[in-house]
Amino acid sequence: MQLFNFNFNRGSVWLVGAGPGDPGLLTLLAYESIKKADVIFYDALLNEQILSLAKPNAQLIYVGKRGNKKSINQLEINKLLINEAKKNKRVLRLKGGDPFIFGRGGEEALSLKLSNIPFKIVPGTTAGIAGLAYAGIPATHRDFNTSITFISAYGAGGEKPETIDWTSFCKTSQLIVIYMGLERINWVCSELIKRGRDKHENIAIISNATKQNQKILISTLVNCSKNFDKNAIDSPALLVIGKNVLLSPILNWYSTNKRNISFLKQNKKINEQYNIV
Amino acid sequence: MQLFNFNFNRGSVWLVGAGPGDPGLLTLLAYESIKKADVIFYDALLNEQILSLAKPNAQLIYVGKRGNKKSINQLEINKLLINEAKKNKRVLRLKGGDPFIFGRGGEEALSLKLSNIPFKIVPGTTAGIAGLAYAGIPATHRDFNTSITFISAYGAGGEKPETIDWTSFCKTSQLIVIYMGLERINWVCSELIKRGRDKHENIAIISNATKQNQKILISTLVNCSKNFDKNAIDSPALLVIGKNVLLSPILNWYSTNKRNISFLKQNKKINEQYNIV
Repeated sequence: MQLFNFNFNRGSVWLVGAGPGDPGLLTLLAYESIKKADVIFYDALLNEQILSLAKPNAQLIYVGKRGNKKSINQLEINKLLINEAKKNKRVLRLKGGDPFIFGRGGEEALSLKLSNIPFKIVPGTTAGIAGLAYAGIPATHRDFNTSITFISAYGAGGEKPETIDWTSFCKTSQLIVIYMGLERINWVCSELIKRGRDKHENIAIISNATKQNQKILISTLVNCSKNFDKNAIDSPALLVIGKNVLLSPILNWYSTNKRNISFLKQNKKINEQYNIV
Repeated sequence: MQLFNFNFNRGSVWLVGAGPGDPGLLTLLAYESIKKADVIFYDALLNEQILSLAKPNAQLIYVGKRGNKKSINQLEINKLLINEAKKNKRVLRLKGGDPFIFGRGGEEALSLKLSNIPFKIVPGTTAGIAGLAYAGIPATHRDFNTSITFISAYGAGGEKPETIDWTSFCKTSQLIVIYMGLERINWVCSELIKRGRDKHENIAIISNATKQNQKILISTLVNCSKNFDKNAIDSPALLVIGKNVLLSPILNWYSTNKRNISFLKQNKKINEQYNIV
């Protein structure tokens, strides 16, 4: 039985999410498209192990952007996708996570549409859900939240996201997941406290979510910036704020390596509640 | 090369998300676990086509809950998972979407942990991201939003989610995705307008997201409840409120069948902006 349609046509572009890191989180569509693509444009956030699936003569082209380093801009990427499709190739734009969650997939899709290039979107599991799951944090839990908000610590031009109404956010968002927040963690924590969140509220930092080297750090908004050791945790990292974080020490199933979980001594709330030292 | 670890042990339970419908959105881990499981507990929201992957002698047990119908409760499901694991079986709890996004996976994981049953979480693509992508709506788009909020139209006990601070929500949430909102669409739209959203703001209803029978309806908050024909669109459905909805008529790549997209005549904003009738 044919389980799903797979028809990666020449001259088309697929915008594909590869998930946050664990290759087991690739979708069947992503897996098949990587094996079939003639040219693959990939990102800094991609687990490069996944590229080993490509066929031997596939072109693998890095178009990543990281931090403040000079790199290829979005318009150039759009143009490359169009040009390669016009050469009648199967073009794969492969992104970490999901192409539409802070991934600029929408801009790429628009430029393809305007150039009449056929395209397809293949969603991927996003770190804001899968990364939490691998850290033992349910993104929703009936007793805690009926809502969850994802927010980028970077605005459209890389600035702090000034369009965000932080006061309202703090009032309403039962669980907040901040993408790309590590470099701005001090600002995020102080903003949240200033706008009304309890300074003792828990925050989890999840670095390299779902990868072999995933690390979880649990602290509180007030202690986090004081005690957080930047050398001990790498980008990319998610910040997770809300009660659900308290479940991490109980439900953390992924890493049995204790060294990968750091509990700050200050975090008495967790220690008392779950008898974890 | 071994791309990922796959070790579905006897006596363990995997809580697995199957994605919103398109079997191509199954992850490799989900795919392998379905083929390997001795017993599969599955939900109403699951695309049942996916169950054809199970081995011939696997037990397939329906534990779905839909609407107000009498059905198995959560504690009974938890007990079944534990009992089957104690029989030394490979137990698969298979859910539509992601197990932790309004899926009660956290409750199941907790009960397994407390009974010392080894478990693993396999995140899936969630309808709130993948369903939007299949409707041509980028969940984030630099010009429109640096945040996205998922909210359930049902509280912990099935009531309207009173813990939600709607006024703050309306102020802050640039894109709102409401799960299970179809039955309460009139309430949702009037609540959003009452608390400050522009009554002409766009809303998309996406029914049977990513499935062959996916339907998209685009309207405005004020017209939606007036003109919405309940017979024309089925549960499950997502409600999507925000500017990103305007991209749907342009980026809609999934369905080339025009009958599957209904544009209410009232929605002049879209018609003017994109010359679509």
